[in-house]
Formats: sequence, C-alpha cells, structure tokens
Amino acid sequence: MSDLVGNCLMAQSGGPTAVINASIAGVIEEAYKHEQIEEVFGATRGVLGVLNEEIIDLSEEKNSAIKGLLYTPSAALGSCRYRLRFASEDPAQAARAQRDCERILEVFKAHNIRYFFYAGGNDSMDSADKISKLAQQQGYDLRVIGVPKTVDNDLPFTDHCPGYGSAIKCCATVVLESSLDTEAMSTGDTCSLIEVMGREAGWVAAGTVLAKRSEQDGPHIILLPEVPFEEDKLVAEVSNVLTAHDRCVIVVGEGLRKPDGKLISFMAGKFEEDAFNHKQLGGVAEALRAIIEEKVGVKCRTSKLGNIQRAAGHLASRADRDHAYMAGARAVQLAVEGQTGLMVTLTREGEGDGVTFGTGTAPLSEVANNVKRLPREWINEAGTLPNEKFIEYARPLIQGEVSPPFEGGLPKYVRLEKHFVEKKCPAYETK
Amino acid sequence: MSDLVGNCLMAQSGGPTAVINASIAGVIEEAYKHEQIEEVFGATRGVLGVLNEEIIDLSEEKNSAIKGLLYTPSAALGSCRYRLRFASEDPAQAARAQRDCERILEVFKAHNIRYFFYAGGNDSMDSADKISKLAQQQGYDLRVIGVPKTVDNDLPFTDHCPGYGSAIKCCATVVLESSLDTEAMSTGDTCSLIEVMGREAGWVAAGTVLAKRSEQDGPHIILLPEVPFEEDKLVAEVSNVLTAHDRCVIVVGEGLRKPDGKLISFMAGKFEEDAFNHKQLGGVAEALRAIIEEKVGVKCRTSKLGNIQRAAGHLASRADRDHAYMAGARAVQLAVEGQTGLMVTLTREGEGDGVTFGTGTAPLSEVANNVKRLPREWINEAGTLPNEKFIEYARPLIQGEVSPPFEGGLPKYVRLEKHFVEKKCPAYETK
Repeated sequence: MSDLVGNCLMAQSGGPTAVINASIAGVIEEAYKHEQIEEVFGATRGVLGVLNEEIIDLSEEKNSAIKGLLYTPSAALGSCRYRLRFASEDPAQAARAQRDCERILEVFKAHNIRYFFYAGGNDSMDSADKISKLAQQQGYDLRVIGVPKTVDNDLPFTDHCPGYGSAIKCCATVVLESSLDTEAMSTGDTCSLIEVMGREAGWVAAGTVLAKRSEQDGPHIILLPEVPFEEDKLVAEVSNVLTAHDRCVIVVGEGLRKPDGKLISFMAGKFEEDAFNHKQLGGVAEALRAIIEEKVGVKCRTSKLGNIQRAAGHLASRADRDHAYMAGARAVQLAVEGQTGLMVTLTREGEGDGVTFGTGTAPLSEVANNVKRLPREWINEAGTLPNEKFIEYARPLIQGEVSPPFEGGLPKYVRLEKHFVEKKCPAYETK
Repeated sequence: MSDLVGNCLMAQSGGPTAVINASIAGVIEEAYKHEQIEEVFGATRGVLGVLNEEIIDLSEEKNSAIKGLLYTPSAALGSCRYRLRFASEDPAQAARAQRDCERILEVFKAHNIRYFFYAGGNDSMDSADKISKLAQQQGYDLRVIGVPKTVDNDLPFTDHCPGYGSAIKCCATVVLESSLDTEAMSTGDTCSLIEVMGREAGWVAAGTVLAKRSEQDGPHIILLPEVPFEEDKLVAEVSNVLTAHDRCVIVVGEGLRKPDGKLISFMAGKFEEDAFNHKQLGGVAEALRAIIEEKVGVKCRTSKLGNIQRAAGHLASRADRDHAYMAGARAVQLAVEGQTGLMVTLTREGEGDGVTFGTGTAPLSEVANNVKRLPREWINEAGTLPNEKFIEYARPLIQGEVSPPFEGGLPKYVRLEKHFVEKKCPAYETK
C-alpha cells in the first residue's frame, strides 16, 4: 500500500464513447474507498483542462449525477484533441510539448494532485507517459494510471477496449434493422451500404457480423481496412450475393485502402491533418456506391453512422459498461498500491458461455506506439467477412443492455454541474 | 353490417417503417373477429405479389410470429416500388396500368378475395383507388380500405401517419446523442451535420427538435425543404451558434432546396430517378459541410441516417405502434361495415397531456394526389427551427417505448414463415 496522501484527478481525451463516463464513475466510487485520496477532481477537456487549470470538484456533484454516468454516453467532463505528442523532428513542437508537461505538473503541484487517471486511446497513453516521466525527473511523487478507451479497439496488450462493445452493439443493431429494410424492398436489385468508423483497423466494421444469424441475413460483405480493396472482386461478390439472396448489405470501414495503400476515398476537408490530393464528397460509402451502381447495375443506398455509433447510450452494452467501470476502479487500486506508468488492460479467461473478464496492466510507454489490427486469420479466406474466431471474440462484448431511463419519449441523460476549483496558477497560453 | 362473405388480403407497399407490421397485426387480429371474413391472406411485395399471385395464408403463421409483428420493424410481407400509376400522356403505360388492374381482379376473383387492405403512402392509395373503381365497373363486390403508412408524414387528411412517430423518435434520440458527442469534443470549432429523410416535406427533420430541451442543446439549426436555403444566412447562423454555445449541431432534410426550387444536392448516379420518378437524394449534408468548412472555417462532421431511421424497431414509439395497430384494425371494421374506397385517418382531440387519438376516413381518390407540407406558421420567423406549435403537435407521437426482446445482445425480431396458397391463375408478365 502506498502512503502517498493527496488529491486525485481524472480526465478523458479523444473521441467519446457510450461508456467512458462509466470509467469516471468507477474512478470516483473507488477513490472514495481509500483514505489516501483526499479530494476527487476532474479536469474539463482532458489535458487542455489541466493546462488551463479548469478543474472541477467531483464531490460536489449530486450522487444521482454520478450514478447517471453509468448510462450517459459521450464524455461528461468534456474531451479534447489536444496532444502532447509531436513529430520529434520539429524542435518548436517538441519544445512546446515539454513546456506543456511542465505546466501540467505546475498545476498538479498547486492542487496537490498525487493520483492522475487518464482515460483515452494511443495519444492519451503517450501523454500520460510523458507526464509520469517528467514527474519522476522532477522528484514529484505522482501516480499515473491510464484507462483504456476507444471504439476503434486498436490498443495493444488489452483483450479489448471499453467503448468498443457498445459501438459494435449499436452498429450491429443498425445493420440488422437496415438489412430487414433492404430485404423488404429488394427484388434482386438493391444494395445497402453502411459506413462505419475505423481509420486504421476494421474492428468496428467486423463487429457488425454479429447481426448475421443465417447465410441469408445481412451483412453479406464487410470491407475491412486489413484487406486491400479490389474493385473487380467486390463487383463479382455483390453479383453473387444478389443472385443468392435477392439483396446485398455491405458494411465498410472508413479506412478501406487499395492494394497500394491509398485510401479508397478521403474526406478532403480543410481540416484533415494528412490531406490527400483527390477530393471525394461523401467518403468511402459514396465511392463504393458509384462503383456498384455503374458496374453491377443495381440501386445502392448509403448510410453513414458518423459520431452516432460512439454516442449511442441507448444501445450501450452492459458487458462493455461493466468493463469500463472495472477499468476505472482498477486504475485507482493500482495507484493506491503504489503503481505508476501503467495502463489497465482487460483480460479474458475461458470461452463460449464460460468466458470471464478481468484486468491486467501494460506499460504506458509500450501502449503508446502500437496499433492492434484485426488478425488476418480472423477473416475468411475471400476477405469478405470475419470468421468464427472473430465472432467467438466479439460476441461476449455486446451482451446485456444498459437501458437508460426515458422521459417524454427520449433517453434522459445526466449533465455534471461542474463546480470549478479556484485557480492557483498564472494563466497559460495553450497555442 | 355487410353480408359480403369471402377472404381478405393484406399488402404493404413503399418504404418500410418501424411499425407497419403492427398494422398487419391489427388487420389480422380484427379480421378473426368477423364471421364474414373466411381466410386471412397476405400478398408478398404489395401489388407485385398480387400480380404474381404470390399469396400467403396468414392463419398458418405461428401466433408468436403475429405477436412479434408488434415489435418487428420493416415490412414482414415484403414491399415493392411497383406502381399502377403512370404519366397519363403515355398510352403504353396507361394500357399497362389498366392490364395490371385487370390482372389483380383476376387474382382476387380466383381466391374469392372480397376485402383488400393496403398499407402505404400516396402511391399505394392511388393503386388501391384504381383497383376499387375497376371492381365496381366490373360488378365485382370488393371492399378496399387503405391504411396510412409513411415516415414522411406527408399524407393529407390524417393528423399524422403511422411510422412517423417512430422515425422521429429514432432521429431525435440520435441527434440528442450526437449532440452530446459534439459538445464533448468542441471548443467552438466543431459542427455536426445529420442528414435525414424527407423529399418533399421537412416533417422528419423538424421532429428532431424534440431532442432540444434547452437553448444550449442541439439541434441548433434545422434546415427544412419548406424554407428556401440561403447560404449566407446559414453561414451567419452557424457563426452565431458557435459563439453562443461553442458547438453547432445541424439537422438537414434531404429535400432542401434553393430559392429557385433546385435541390441543394443529389447524387447523380445511374439510378438518380426511381420507378416513381423520385430523385434519389443523398449528399446534401456533404454539400453543406463543404460550405461550412470553407465559409465558417470550422470542422464539420456528417452522419446520414439512410434507411436506418425508418427501420429502428429498437427505438419505436409505443404511441406510434398503437396507432398503426388501430389503423389496421379500423380498416377491417370499416370494410365489414360495408365501406370501400376509403383510407383510415388518425384524428386528434384535446391538447397537452390530455391529447387523445382516434380514427376517421378520407376518400382514397383525394388522398392520392396531395402532399401535406409542414405549415410555415409552425416554423420560427428566421426559418431555422420549428416552433412550439410544432412541438405541441409532435411530442405525443414519440411517447412510450416498444422495447423488442433482445437475444445475444441484439434485438430478436420475427420472420413470417410464408406458407404460399396454391396458384390458380396463369402466369403474368409484370414488365
């Protein structure tokens, strides 16, 4: 047991999920159990809130609001895209990252923050690692534990990421329902195309295979970034499916690429970091729609789930929610036990109906620079659908419903009151 | 009471909804109560199924399947886009429509069908009207009653259309959740744009205003086909919203038009016009995204709900489902009472919490050629949001949840077994 006494601070970063707030609830409720932790603070908008010293006192929130975090999607503390990681070649950016880390420790010291819990993905784990290391250099006793969070499910070392199960429960439900619609309308002449998230890895797209309970059910084809896209193969496969089942439901991950590694379609907006040259309205689903209508000669309808798939609290998975809570609570336990520089991982034991989940750890520094892609051996030979190995992996992650309360016909989610702690540091310029 | 004894036939046509199957259940369960109705048949794929004499015996379905229609979305009998209405200028098409109607009566006579219930929108009511009139000309005693169905809510004479309440419950929930996501991620620099259905009228887009419970909540702007689109006004309004609320959530109906009546955007694919000469819409969100990123200078993320919004059984409105059932049951009662050539309408009495709904009737022939648009006086002066009058209208339509059973983490819907009745007529060429 650590005898380090002080306050704890929780923050969340990157894209929200349906269950990241459950991790916050896990941290808060576990923190109250430990005498070493005096106050429980939250930073608004991830590291950006720390830099701006925008810190809220979570103990002033109503208990019903903390309980409400268990079914409220998105990021109740606010999130950010601000990063402490930059191209190391650029000395100005590296200097800024260093300055940011020093500022964070200045704020931590001012508020006696000794426990820092950061929920996020790759970049957040990198940020947490940087802060942890600088604290050690400065001899400031600080426990830093990362809490995994991403619908993309692409963090290494962990069996899965909280947020992923709910994202695929949402996407699979929507694909199931969209398939029923397509079945009703098609007489061998209709495709539906549903675009889901996943820039680097096809985990979300793959998860929609859970909607398929028989060969005739959609999705009939799932296009994954892990399988290089070949137009001729798609055209042939769509024709086969239309012949066999009178309709074709296709799910595509946004990061689908050609064999040369180029994205099929890129939203060449003004604000894409790594902008490509060719401009294509509507993304990969619209690009594929054009191909199918032209080459197969059938009508093709598109849907794009956008941020809906990561915010669908009304379709959150209870298993996923419980894992998110468990990861938050475990982070506190690890810190109180004296650990630092780690990310909580989720572990799996057993299989089938007997599968159970627990927690482990991985070093923050090793998480940060790895992306976990869908294994090729979890995809069928043709590259058109995930196979039984994937289904065995994914099925337990969508089990159970969270069922938020409804009021007036719509889900009733909570909003934190956000009582800010008085600032103690000089203002800081984040740009 | 009519003493016309014979079989009844139910069919559904056009785009599916989350509750059209409840109308089927209403017809079936009511039909069993009346001795005049001997057998209860369903046609697969609307009039196309009648033309092809693909008729199923609904009494052979399991009772659990009929009960399951109360929570199963899409069109369990199958639907179609086949129409009996053509440009009257084209003599070949008019002749085909006439031949089709004669074929339908041939099939009806062969199976002693004396009661015909057709669930659908404008085009379906027109088809039903044609069949009703030809039967009268031929002296074949036939009762034809239409059951309103469309997520678009654009049928005249009826207070609202079954299917609409569930569509806006789905869209409003999704907009509510997407707004939470946008709120978490934006620091005055993010818009979300959600594209919903509505070619001619903005009913679905308008319904998302129900997600807005305070001024800061999304949606902040709803762009309706009823209000001509002006780019400069949108740019100014988005800037205002970003200043006031740090984020901006916009909902746009697919049929948004410029002041000259031209659509903002439609994907000019091969199937740009369907069998009904409807424009295949899609892409208005992307067109607006380009404008906002360029002119306002902030990031803009898009979602497109596609056929998801009309198939979301897991978010169906109980009020809507009950009205769909009531409309089906009432159709049978009207026919048994000796009525024909009518569409069931939904009526409203009282207001606020005291509102109640009943049924009325309208002549099929008058329904067919009318489109009901959102009244201008239900939209605020700036044309950016529906006002309290609309909210008072729409709120009762999303009340209550249907909550389908879940199995293995996903909704468990029913599928009819479809026991086909033996064919008695020669084959027919539908093309």
